[in-house]
Amino acid sequence: MAEHIAPGGFSCPVPQPPGDRVLLSHGGGGRHMQHLLKEVFFKHFDHPLLAERGDSAVFPSMTDGSLAMTTDSYVIKPLFFPGGDIGSLAVHGTVNDLAVCGARPRYLSAGFIIEEGFPMADLVRIVDSMRHAADEVGAAIVTGDTKVVDRGSGDGLFVNVTGIGEVVVDPAPAPSHIRPGDRVLLSGDLGRHGIAVMAVREGLSFDTELCSDSGPIWPTVEAMLREGIRPHCMRDLTRGGLGAALAELAETTGLDIELDEAGLPVCEAVEGACEVLGLDPMFIANEGRFVAFVAPDQVADALAVMAEAHGDAAVIGEVHEGAGRVRIVQATGLARMLLVPTGTQLPRIC
Amino acid sequence: MAEHIAPGGFSCPVPQPPGDRVLLSHGGGGRHMQHLLKEVFFKHFDHPLLAERGDSAVFPSMTDGSLAMTTDSYVIKPLFFPGGDIGSLAVHGTVNDLAVCGARPRYLSAGFIIEEGFPMADLVRIVDSMRHAADEVGAAIVTGDTKVVDRGSGDGLFVNVTGIGEVVVDPAPAPSHIRPGDRVLLSGDLGRHGIAVMAVREGLSFDTELCSDSGPIWPTVEAMLREGIRPHCMRDLTRGGLGAALAELAETTGLDIELDEAGLPVCEAVEGACEVLGLDPMFIANEGRFVAFVAPDQVADALAVMAEAHGDAAVIGEVHEGAGRVRIVQATGLARMLLVPTGTQLPRIC
Repeated sequence: MAEHIAPGGFSCPVPQPPGDRVLLSHGGGGRHMQHLLKEVFFKHFDHPLLAERGDSAVFPSMTDGSLAMTTDSYVIKPLFFPGGDIGSLAVHGTVNDLAVCGARPRYLSAGFIIEEGFPMADLVRIVDSMRHAADEVGAAIVTGDTKVVDRGSGDGLFVNVTGIGEVVVDPAPAPSHIRPGDRVLLSGDLGRHGIAVMAVREGLSFDTELCSDSGPIWPTVEAMLREGIRPHCMRDLTRGGLGAALAELAETTGLDIELDEAGLPVCEAVEGACEVLGLDPMFIANEGRFVAFVAPDQVADALAVMAEAHGDAAVIGEVHEGAGRVRIVQATGLARMLLVPTGTQLPRIC
Repeated sequence: MAEHIAPGGFSCPVPQPPGDRVLLSHGGGGRHMQHLLKEVFFKHFDHPLLAERGDSAVFPSMTDGSLAMTTDSYVIKPLFFPGGDIGSLAVHGTVNDLAVCGARPRYLSAGFIIEEGFPMADLVRIVDSMRHAADEVGAAIVTGDTKVVDRGSGDGLFVNVTGIGEVVVDPAPAPSHIRPGDRVLLSGDLGRHGIAVMAVREGLSFDTELCSDSGPIWPTVEAMLREGIRPHCMRDLTRGGLGAALAELAETTGLDIELDEAGLPVCEAVEGACEVLGLDPMFIANEGRFVAFVAPDQVADALAVMAEAHGDAAVIGEVHEGAGRVRIVQATGLARMLLVPTGTQLPRIC
């Protein structure tokens, strides 16, 4: 559609499509930004609170109990990978942080930092993917923000998703509720997300395509709660993987966690890739897996619910009195202490 | 402090300071990240909910009325400017979006995207500045996230702040409540933030130092509400300035807004800079100014409260039946339509 630009960058209010590429002007607060908001964000997120155009989304308080709030920024590279994209990942990652606190995901915000020149079609695809991921757990994207940085000052697209959830179990699961004797349950196999992303980035190929495990854990958590299972603590296994999550929980609680190495579910493709690349599946990021600390008398029921969602769910360890360490019992029967890496094996996987 | 690194990047758990520069490993989910969290974020934000190390912050629901939620990412360049930095700006910007919806700012999240090599001292200064800005309005930073991107993939530091507030007035001020006859009140002079940032970036100097107006508007809004003033709508004037805000409100409501150009408060330094640079103060970003749409019988009281916070507060216009346009009555008595720029006059000012 033609645009009539007068001197000084001012133009007549003729409606225009947002164009093929994101421009600096799309982040400027002027008419281009209004178009981007309407044609991309409002259209695909399609929520009445967005349509109201307030500075904040205003909605009735959803509970007289507790709320949960969490935030994550996503800088994954590449933006599209087998099994998802930065949009679905951003929603899954944030709603999973709510779910492990026993909170039903309700309201999400979406913040975009876009590098000038980013393809509009990719942005639309990502926004659409966020909407679907939110729908899947009954959450709504109700407020957002777009910034555009000049070429070379970003890396395509960074996304922040912050979420609010309604805590549906009292007390909310938390590290402080872990007790000696608790069993550690893992909801599925390890390492798919990190290896799937790494494979695209490095051009590796497998006999069968390896997909990220990126997905929402709330349906599984909700089913557990509905069955009367009351996990003492849950944690989703993202950056740093299972190893970093357990090490942090052991340190926080001062309890020891004993892991059965042979019992850790890892698929063939991930195992093969880890051997070739010299990586440990224990520290590879997942985006749809969590551990639950469960009292012994609830283990069978909890495992049954988890296994329904993912066949590889397993009891992988037990909590003991101790000194805040993770002990790994190897297949040989020998035990070693888990040592957490200083940094990461794979950067920018979330 | 010495670090003992074994082959494969694993090392003994010796406590270390985060170092002079942010490294990729500080975002990796391993021990370096734990150090950064403890020594920088937990230490300076210093809130019990952060200390709990949950995946989400869990807190009691603060109201049985309405909640407000808003998000903004901040990509300002440079990170430090007269009157503030990206940290204080991020908190002010987000809590101001809550305030204009009649919401007392309560809980904030902080998401950091840091470019590898970023000076740790600058990060600490910014985090400290966020804490002070949050304290000033009685809000708490209760959850956060840190990502580190490789050198060249970011631009120093981007910050996202998402906020939840408790709506303390019913109904919440909103564009749909604006009525013909409402007066438009402006809380202080225009353009300081944009020009102060531009001046640093371009090396301009003024006779007297020009400081950004970045600051919290909640104290003024709260005082207005306490005095029984019920603004129909409020809006803070950020990207796109007064002009973009009023144009959007006129379009959303379908009403006309008539502005008295001679009544717009602009300080000498801003006026001078705008003349030299060919900019219009009407479209320059502010970060501590808002407009309130007030019924005629509340104008005097509202103006008195606003003027107590800032001497330059003024009644600048009036709402009429119309066609969703902004009309500017010039000093000469002639009127013109406000034309909103397609993009921005000054990029990356927030």
